[in-house]
Order: sequence, then structure tokens, then C-alpha cells
Amino acid sequence: MREVAILGIGQTPVGEHWDQSLKQIAAEAVRAVVQDAQIDQADGLFVGNMLSGLLDSQHDLGTFVAGQAGLRGIEAIKVDAACGSGGAACRAALMAVASSAMEAAIVVGVEKMTDRPGNEVTGALVTAADADFESALGMSFVAINALLMQAYMHAYGWPHADFAPFSINAHANAQHNPYARLREPITEKQYGQARMVADPINLLDASPIGDGAAAIVLVPAEVARRRTGERPIVTIAASTAASDSIAIHDRYNTLELAAARQSAERAYAQAGLTPDDIDVFELHDAFSIMAAMSLEAAGFAERGQGPRLGLDGQIGPNGKVPIATRGGLKARGHPVGATGVYQLVEVFQQLVGEAGATQVPSAKVGMAQSIGGSGAAVITHILRAE
Amino acid sequence: MREVAILGIGQTPVGEHWDQSLKQIAAEAVRAVVQDAQIDQADGLFVGNMLSGLLDSQHDLGTFVAGQAGLRGIEAIKVDAACGSGGAACRAALMAVASSAMEAAIVVGVEKMTDRPGNEVTGALVTAADADFESALGMSFVAINALLMQAYMHAYGWPHADFAPFSINAHANAQHNPYARLREPITEKQYGQARMVADPINLLDASPIGDGAAAIVLVPAEVARRRTGERPIVTIAASTAASDSIAIHDRYNTLELAAARQSAERAYAQAGLTPDDIDVFELHDAFSIMAAMSLEAAGFAERGQGPRLGLDGQIGPNGKVPIATRGGLKARGHPVGATGVYQLVEVFQQLVGEAGATQVPSAKVGMAQSIGGSGAAVITHILRAE
Repeated sequence: MREVAILGIGQTPVGEHWDQSLKQIAAEAVRAVVQDAQIDQADGLFVGNMLSGLLDSQHDLGTFVAGQAGLRGIEAIKVDAACGSGGAACRAALMAVASSAMEAAIVVGVEKMTDRPGNEVTGALVTAADADFESALGMSFVAINALLMQAYMHAYGWPHADFAPFSINAHANAQHNPYARLREPITEKQYGQARMVADPINLLDASPIGDGAAAIVLVPAEVARRRTGERPIVTIAASTAASDSIAIHDRYNTLELAAARQSAERAYAQAGLTPDDIDVFELHDAFSIMAAMSLEAAGFAERGQGPRLGLDGQIGPNGKVPIATRGGLKARGHPVGATGVYQLVEVFQQLVGEAGATQVPSAKVGMAQSIGGSGAAVITHILRAE
Repeated sequence: MREVAILGIGQTPVGEHWDQSLKQIAAEAVRAVVQDAQIDQADGLFVGNMLSGLLDSQHDLGTFVAGQAGLRGIEAIKVDAACGSGGAACRAALMAVASSAMEAAIVVGVEKMTDRPGNEVTGALVTAADADFESALGMSFVAINALLMQAYMHAYGWPHADFAPFSINAHANAQHNPYARLREPITEKQYGQARMVADPINLLDASPIGDGAAAIVLVPAEVARRRTGERPIVTIAASTAASDSIAIHDRYNTLELAAARQSAERAYAQAGLTPDDIDVFELHDAFSIMAAMSLEAAGFAERGQGPRLGLDGQIGPNGKVPIATRGGLKARGHPVGATGVYQLVEVFQQLVGEAGATQVPSAKVGMAQSIGGSGAAVITHILRAE
């Protein structure tokens, strides 16, 4: 399996882009990555997307985006692992380049969510849950996560206020990211007083949806190394995936993200690293409960101790485990199928020293974990700067 | 790039399976392929599917199917290239095994289409067309193909009756395939008198939708060769893909399937073969016009001469270019995201001599071409028996 590197990145701001269609947003990110990576051709386009069928009446999205991006003729597919689609598209592209089937692959994650009424979007998002046993009963996706958070708080005795650092850190970091959707800092008081969505999840526990696209270019590492640029070379030291039951009632342990743990453990083994070696961790903080559980699953906190690192002030850019360094899902925003690619773009920025005011000092190794559903499909990548 | 082989096949009958859900059908095919290939573990599950979001309210279908099939924990993704999803899922899995990321990958194509009213299914299928310029104007998918057929007949002077051999051959072959949906032979007279759907496409020009799932297992060729079974080893000699504009008005030449041609040409080059070497060709005969144009694109007929081989009696199992040997989309049925995998299952059957009454004599090399949209995304595989 030949080694693969990320040659460049591209992204659009996450927001409500009513003046741009799905394919226009995706093409903007593709054009940005082509310019950043300075490539003049690519062999494949891998699109990470969840909702184009439901919200945009469009399937065969790979081809649809290829046409708009000036890539007609290119091999193009869409990969769907719900909210983990971005990570899954990267992994599919990685295998294409690693297998030598392709010499350069463009990955673009894209979602267009704000053209439709909120209830329609909520109805679309819950297709990431189990259609037979969860959504069929009227559960929304936030309701499922609220049940998880209730159970977690009950089992481990955390009050709601102890989750505040996740949201405060995400918003603080997003201020400095021009691509983030929510760039206003928030206080502990605001967090405690935010409008309830599904008890105990309030508005500041939940990530906002949005329109957005992010892209990377993958090439063989040896090709990247031949470039004589200013940037360090960023290789993919590990790429893994695992799954769990979609329905949370069907898990062996509701309060453990088993697939996230398995995927992370395999990634550490593949890269020959431990959690201590990770300088920056872009996790899937769709809700603050997911941030807590992800930290545990990835080996950064003991079982039930997810909120501890935040309370100890260790999740900021200068902390022991910097997370959501560009705003995370919480404040950069969560255009679901695009999110996994935004995470890789942001880890890349950290490793090449382009993270500005939220730069993690001397970051050499970073991890991104893309999660579909409430921990059902998990894709983990570890990137390393040379 | 290490060589990959198909270790076994599985399929369910195509039909109206109101007693089975999407995941039950998929799991049935997965269980069948696990038994046929005699594997005791796999590293990945690649699901080819188009419409689970729209018709079944389910995303993250890879994980959803994995749970039902007893594969919880496995890496699982869904690949969407509209009606070409099955072929695209096979290609993604092939690259996973070729890259050494996986030692065994299960591919399952599945679609559940008959639980919903016909107009809803028609509305879902047209998401394979261009949402901005085709479906937005009220076009259905059959209408788009009817315009293509009108243009083709006008340009090259073929009367409608000359397309009859495609449907007659498909139905004749499907009689002997226990997994086919339409197992009744049809006559030229019936073809000519069939109810009009969208002029000039009548009911016997169009493939039926259906519920169904088909599966294959991919492993390194060296692993397959170590097996001491009765069957010949079937390797994947070529795997390629290409795209074209989704909207047919935007093609350089409306009457040429350029992506099908490019994909086929690359496949021949990859395998070191020519069209003359292909013993059996499972093409994407969603409509009889697509059969004609596919034969041209794949190099079996001159431009505008697609119907000629049928009129000359050369498309049956004993002809020069056997197509739709197990019924094709036309008569086996077209559960859209599953179809590309059914095609590979059927080519495999031909190459190992398990095609029964429609066995192509001494078939050693077979090709399957999976098409998304009206030629927008095309995936071609060439299989070879050792």
C-alpha cells in the first residue's frame, strides 16, 4: 500500500448561501483546492454528501459536481456514510491512490441545507438514524442525542454546566476562522441560559447546520515530496473505519462509542502512535455530549470522564488535547456531508502552520474523526507533517 | 496494484417483495455470498444503492445493512452513482482490496422500490437526471430516454420495430434465470403492440423496477488461486470509470455515450483486449435505446448501427456478442442500485459455466457496464476466467 499525502486544501465559508446552489458551492471548493495544490489534472472526484437526494433532488452527485467544476469526463462517485460521509469519501479516495488506480484524487465534501424549511431538514437528518426503530417512532436526531446525554449525565453524575467548556472553546476558536459560521464568543452564563432544544441539549450544545464545501487533493507521498514548496509535507499516517449499530438501544453499551474506539485504536496501531502523540484532534462535536464521548473513545479520557479535560482547561490550542481548533462542528458549522473534509482541511492547516490565532504550537501529528449517525459509522485519519 | 478476484456470488430474485424490507433483502444477498464464497470474515462492506434516502428514509445504508447481515463493526459505506451505483460500489471495493487496505470485501447492491406508489418512484428516479435543467422542467427519466430514442431514430433512420430483438432476447434469456423478474418470452408482435409509455418508448422497451440485491466477494487473486474448488478462478482484468454531463442537452454529441466509450476503451487498454475478445457483454439496457447506444460505445457496432447486431441474430447466447444473457435490465429487472452487481454476478456465472440454458459456450472473458443516468456515470469491468 503506497503512502499518500494531502497536496492542498480548499473550502468555502459555512453559512446560509442562498445565492449559491449545491453544485456551485462544491465547485468553488474544488477550484480552491486545485489552485492551492497547483495540479493540472486529477483522475477521480470523490464527493462526500448525505442529503442531495432529499434536499436537492439530485443523485449521481459526483458527476453533477464534476460538470460544474470543469471536470467533465472524470471518474466521479458520491460516498454516503450519513454525517460521516466526508471522512468516508476521503478514505475511498485514499484507497484509490494507494492502490495505484489513481495518481491524483480530489475529495470534496458538500452539503446544501438552508434552502429548505427547518422541519424538512430535521426530517432529512433523521435518516441517519434507524428508519425501522428510531425515526419511525418520531425521534429526531437531536432527541436521540438528548437521550444519550441524559443517560450519560445520570450514569456519571455530570451537571449540564460541566459541558460548557466544549462550546466555549469551539466558539472562541471560530472567531479566528474566516470560514466558520458562528464567529461570536460565548460565555458560561450564555451557555447555561441558552434556549432548550431537547432536554438537556440546548441551543449552545448543538452544532448549526449550514451550506458549505471543503476539499483536499490526495497524491502519492513521493509526488508531494518532489514539490519544492514552503509547506511541510503532510502524509496520511492512518486511515481506518468501523461501524456500530445505528440504533442506540441496540449497542452493547449505550454510553460508549465502540466504533469510534475501534477506529481510533486501529488508527493508532496503523500509525505506530498513541493518544499522547496526537497534537491536535478534530472530533465530531455535533453535540457537546458527542465531544465528551469522542474524547473517551479516542483514548484521551477515562470512561465517563469526557468533560474533565475541558474543565481542566486542556482543550484549547495550548492545552494538552486541542480540539475544535477552528471552531469544530459546534461553531465552524456542520454541513453534514462536508464536515469530515473540513476536519481534514483544518488538521492540515494546523500541521503546516496556517492556523493563525488558534495555531497549536509545533503541531506535527493530528487526528480527525468523522462520525455518521450517533456513532454508527466512524472514519479516523491521522495526518503527519514531515 | 495487486490483482483482485471474485470469490463468490449471491443474489435474491428481483420482484415485488412486500414481505421483506430493504435491509432484509440486502442481508439475504450477503448471506448468500458469504456461503457461496465460503469466507469466515471480511474487512469491508460496500453497498451500491441509489434511493434508500428517498424511498426508505434511510441514510448510512452501509452500516444499516451491516447490522442486519451480522457484520456489526465492519467498515461499511454506501456508494451512489445513481443507476450505476452497483458498478461504482464494486470499483470502490476493488480499490480497497487492490491497495491492500482490505483482504476481503463484500459488495452488495440493493434497492427496495415497490413499497411506494409509482409516481413517487418516478419522482425518485428522476433525481438521476439534472435537477437544475431536466427534472426541474418536469421531465421524467423515461421521457429523457424517449427524446434520445426519437433523436436516434431520426438521425439514423431506424424504425421502432428494429429495436425489438433487444427485448425479445432479454425475455427469452430471463425465462431460464430463476432470479429474473419477467420470465415470460415475448414476440415481435407483442413488442410492436405494447402500451406506449413515452413515445417511442413502449412498455416492452423499458426495464421494470423491482426489489432486489446482488453481492460479490472480492479477494486478492492469489488467495482465490489457493482455493482448491471446482470453479475456474475469475479475476478482474479491468476496472474503469468515466463521466459525462448529466443533462443530455449538454453533451458534445447527444447520440453518443461518450463516457461509456471512454470507460470501455480504458478497460480494453487495461486488460490488453479488444471488443473481439469479449465473449459476453452485460450492458445497461434500461431502455432498448440504451442497449443500442451501449453496443456502439463499447466498440461492438459502428456509430448509428446499434440495432444491427440484434437484427442479424448476433446478440443471443450463441451469437457474436451475447448480451443480457440472464435477462438484462429489461427482463431480469432493474433494482437500480443493485443492477451493476447483478451484472457482475451474471458475467461470473457465464465464466464459471453456471449459466444453465443460456450458457455462452466456452466463455472466458466477460464485460459488464454499469451506467448512471442516461450515460452520465459509467463503470466498466472486464472479468477473466483462468
